Amino acid sequence: MQDIMQATGLQKGGIYRHFGTKEELAHEAFDYAWRETIQARLKNLDSVPNSVDRLKQFIANFVEVRSPVPGGCPLLNTAVEADDGNAVLRKRALLALRGWRNTLAAIVQKGIDRHEIAKATQPETVATIVIASLEGALMMSRLERNGDHLLTVQKHLNAYLESSVRV
Amino acid sequence: MQDIMQATGLQKGGIYRHFGTKEELAHEAFDYAWRETIQARLKNLDSVPNSVDRLKQFIANFVEVRSPVPGGCPLLNTAVEADDGNAVLRKRALLALRGWRNTLAAIVQKGIDRHEIAKATQPETVATIVIASLEGALMMSRLERNGDHLLTVQKHLNAYLESSVRV
Repeated sequence: MQDIMQATGLQKGGIYRHFGTKEELAHEAFDYAWRETIQARLKNLDSVPNSVDRLKQFIANFVEVRSPVPGGCPLLNTAVEADDGNAVLRKRALLALRGWRNTLAAIVQKGIDRHEIAKATQPETVATIVIASLEGALMMSRLERNGDHLLTVQKHLNAYLESSVRV
Repeated sequence: MQDIMQATGLQKGGIYRHFGTKEELAHEAFDYAWRETIQARLKNLDSVPNSVDRLKQFIANFVEVRSPVPGGCPLLNTAVEADDGNAVLRKRALLALRGWRNTLAAIVQKGIDRHEIAKATQPETVATIVIASLEGALMMSRLERNGDHLLTVQKHLNAYLESSVRV
């Protein structure tokens, strides 16, 4: 609460005028941070016609574009911090993860339909591999305070997309 | 502090008799949890002669063996929670990450020396890819409360080791 009062310059009463409870404020803050984050990661994707190149652009956005909200990935942070705590916040993170996975899986499915991606490819599998690698690399890169691990994983994912996903 | 008192059954005075400060206690708790965790992940590795199979056994340990300490991976948890907080705890997590990477990289280097692993392979790259994928999948699996993402990533990593790492 102290942090929020400092960040917003509002008094406690001013904050509670907008949000019923501290929990409600936390949920709104997560939803806002996630919306901003996913928007930044999906930036310029529509202008990339080929599905595999679109996945590679998504990865490049994740690796190269600084998060619009400070503190790294809101999903990773909330997943860890609400793991055995706030059940409602945990649920929001879970829905964010599923939404993100569906977005990537839909790109893969479109690629299969357009014969850009091998027919045997499982859209959800590709989505899981991309998200897991990027989130783990982000955790490592934040610990090391440099982007090396993210770049290593980007190269690996691009090679995987070229060798196992593209027709 | 309340949690620790409940978990240990000790009074505050009893805890401070063993640890100078709450910070010192947190550091010792992290070191203990990490030691237990890495031991479980390295279990039975020495009995696997081939280096690539040894990496696969490591991945299987990570995926299949339940963590000996509750709450998931101490490294992931501490990396996220100490990200912009406790600098000393953050440093311990960083050293844990580097030690883990060195352990995996050493297995790869041994494999190169023994001609089990392709000469052009970069040991640190393999280590980063394995750690990033597993940690990210663990975060996802803990959110979903099932092991599906971990199994998906295990399959992906095994395919990568067979196609790009083994000679």
